[in-house]
Amino acid sequence: MFSKETYVTRRAKLKQTIGSGLLLFIGNDESGMNYADNTYHFRQDSTFLYFFGLPYAGLSAIIDIDNDKEIIFGDELTIDAIVWMGTQPTLKENSEKAGIRETRPSSELETYLKNASQKGQTIHYLPPYRAEHRLKLLSWLNIYPGTEQPSVPFIMGVVNQRNYKSEEEIAEIEKACIVTADMHLTAMRTVRPGIRESEVAAVVAEVAYAHNYQLSFPVIATINGQTLHNHYHGNMIKSGDMLLLDAGAETEMGYAGDMSSTIPADSRFTTRQKEVYDIAVAAHEAAVAALKPGVLFEDIYDLSAATVMEGLKGLGFVKGDPMEAVKAGAHALFYPCGLGHMMGLDVHDMENLGEVYVGYDGRAKSTQFGRKSLRLGRKLEPGFVLTIEPGIYFIPELIDLWRSQDKFTEFINYEKVATYKDFSGIRNEEDYLITETGARLLGKKIPIHTEEVEALR
Amino acid sequence: MFSKETYVTRRAKLKQTIGSGLLLFIGNDESGMNYADNTYHFRQDSTFLYFFGLPYAGLSAIIDIDNDKEIIFGDELTIDAIVWMGTQPTLKENSEKAGIRETRPSSELETYLKNASQKGQTIHYLPPYRAEHRLKLLSWLNIYPGTEQPSVPFIMGVVNQRNYKSEEEIAEIEKACIVTADMHLTAMRTVRPGIRESEVAAVVAEVAYAHNYQLSFPVIATINGQTLHNHYHGNMIKSGDMLLLDAGAETEMGYAGDMSSTIPADSRFTTRQKEVYDIAVAAHEAAVAALKPGVLFEDIYDLSAATVMEGLKGLGFVKGDPMEAVKAGAHALFYPCGLGHMMGLDVHDMENLGEVYVGYDGRAKSTQFGRKSLRLGRKLEPGFVLTIEPGIYFIPELIDLWRSQDKFTEFINYEKVATYKDFSGIRNEEDYLITETGARLLGKKIPIHTEEVEALR
Repeated sequence: MFSKETYVTRRAKLKQTIGSGLLLFIGNDESGMNYADNTYHFRQDSTFLYFFGLPYAGLSAIIDIDNDKEIIFGDELTIDAIVWMGTQPTLKENSEKAGIRETRPSSELETYLKNASQKGQTIHYLPPYRAEHRLKLLSWLNIYPGTEQPSVPFIMGVVNQRNYKSEEEIAEIEKACIVTADMHLTAMRTVRPGIRESEVAAVVAEVAYAHNYQLSFPVIATINGQTLHNHYHGNMIKSGDMLLLDAGAETEMGYAGDMSSTIPADSRFTTRQKEVYDIAVAAHEAAVAALKPGVLFEDIYDLSAATVMEGLKGLGFVKGDPMEAVKAGAHALFYPCGLGHMMGLDVHDMENLGEVYVGYDGRAKSTQFGRKSLRLGRKLEPGFVLTIEPGIYFIPELIDLWRSQDKFTEFINYEKVATYKDFSGIRNEEDYLITETGARLLGKKIPIHTEEVEALR
Repeated sequence: MFSKETYVTRRAKLKQTIGSGLLLFIGNDESGMNYADNTYHFRQDSTFLYFFGLPYAGLSAIIDIDNDKEIIFGDELTIDAIVWMGTQPTLKENSEKAGIRETRPSSELETYLKNASQKGQTIHYLPPYRAEHRLKLLSWLNIYPGTEQPSVPFIMGVVNQRNYKSEEEIAEIEKACIVTADMHLTAMRTVRPGIRESEVAAVVAEVAYAHNYQLSFPVIATINGQTLHNHYHGNMIKSGDMLLLDAGAETEMGYAGDMSSTIPADSRFTTRQKEVYDIAVAAHEAAVAALKPGVLFEDIYDLSAATVMEGLKGLGFVKGDPMEAVKAGAHALFYPCGLGHMMGLDVHDMENLGEVYVGYDGRAKSTQFGRKSLRLGRKLEPGFVLTIEPGIYFIPELIDLWRSQDKFTEFINYEKVATYKDFSGIRNEEDYLITETGARLLGKKIPIHTEEVEALR
């Protein structure tokens, strides 16, 4: 946890922003895998962590602005639990570390909320993203699952604090990024023909766990980098393959790192691989060079996509004006995802609160295929922490689909593209802090140029 | 998956046992950690796996016995999903692998159930153990969360099949046990003073992941072995400590292994450690020697506990008749947990269905402290797979509590016990199959005697 003052200050600011009503924070519970007591590793809700710091299951909290009360609801351990779990600080002691003086048993929360509701207080809550949250809202406030109405002022209040990382948060994110970089360096030393993807994923996870960190998201370690949501690790790595690794660590306090690298199975990239890889790196570096306060991130996305199209034009995949192709959406055949996203206590920071609020400051997102996957499009400000992760993918299903629809034939040379349906995909990803004057890489630099990657092989 | 016939046969047997009504199988969903799309690794419900084999999220199934129908409900991938996830077999193709010819969209399940209900069919369902199950029962059948009434005939029908492992299941469990043994061997080679518990937990997990297996439960790797529910990995291992490791692998099909070992930080156990350790091993071996069909497992528990008390009497911790002490419950000061549990598709097999049904054949469990934690008490039968894991723990909180209550002073020498409050705890665990004539160790033998463990250090 940070110092008590951090949490006290954060809550005071939130209270002031929202002004009235009652803010309900639903902490997370233990989550059973195949039976109730065989649980996944516990992950506290990030907004709960941000304002209350306590990484324990079964807690809820309220900030009753109208009555100037801050209460954590939860249950003290029984002697039976202490015998099984060892002596622990009490909930009261833990809560004091976050500057909360009042704790009450869980069973009293429902009555508190019902009284507040009867007195006409507005009860603000955030979007539920776990089934258990919906069960609680049903039980406490009689809100039928699926009919929840999360509070936009509460969402905006949280987003407008959590989007701006403090010095102590940046230091914590940097810790995550250093371990994340080590995960990638370990993979670069491990990948070789004849081992399974799972063996790479395993050593990558081991690096995070050895630090007593978690994975900030499930590891992607695949020779099918063109498949963007791919958590299958069962393939054997063969000579000529590239392994796309997207993996990050999460510190004990819950802050995330998130990096990607693309590693040749052999000691060298093939010429065909290097040609495309170099374009992906050029798009990456163009985006990084453009990072500074005041710039619209969506413009940087356009820049990176135009760099991809320019490069692919040089190889004969693409024709016409690169930026025109990007504005029309033709780049999405190769680059159907975003350029980056906010990162903090969540790897996609506050995704549960709504990307439009977090990444677009309330402005509507594009609905264009490809561009709609850009999670961040707003004007950059100092204190933002974000990822840069352009990529180039040859997705057979998408190539076949677009070709059958004669889509963007003015920009795309399908004859040539069709010969790369076995190419897979390339992505490199780093994490940056927007500073007063530009941007700073978080963590340590991992090899990105082909010769740097090859030097580690 | 096993062959189609396996699933067809299992379902036919279940239908025959239950005779009438409609059996509802609720598969598991993806489960978000800190937002909906940042998911824990997916784990299918084990009963769903047992009868339908499909390890995919978002499925439900029914066996409508009255109308002789078997249907899997789920949704085919959209082209958008295929672009992101790659080409996948269809739900229809997957379902055929389990011998199911009829699939329908998820949205049709509710209507199917409502019609069945209106026609007076009994709808059998199993105990919900995830919040999402409760939401589904609410949505489909208007069953308010907390008021569910799971079907005892359905539970008993499932238990009476899953408790008896087939040859192909045993082969699969054996695979899990072999990797589980490797996890422990790796730990025995890794533990040393000056590294953190998390470093041991990390290499242990790495072994499972490298095989593309999962952990069958969260790793326990602790120098505080006396704390039975302990998933904290932040301590530094010091000279003189013992590390208690309880960890197991789960195969790609979902079958579990589960072993424990107790490893000295140094190359040798201390004399004080060896004296207690040898007693734990004697209790372990007495239990293993007693395994055979027809024997009440609760009697074997008594035997192992009496062996512990006998040994501790030799060291001056205990007085009086060992078996009398066990019958009275005094052993639970040192041995407050069970001797073992069923193991299969769940590491505590079918814990969600109720231990009384699984482990006691419907007979009520003891309420005595210690004995009540025995998950398995029934008469052993060929085909049962179970763990053997007696232990000896010096739990400071429990010692202080019992001493303050003058509990069992006729059996316990608290003066002596109090000098071991810093001892921690010891457990060794193996997995056995009950055969026609006795029992067979599953997986490979890991070192259990002190000299065997020391030889690996």
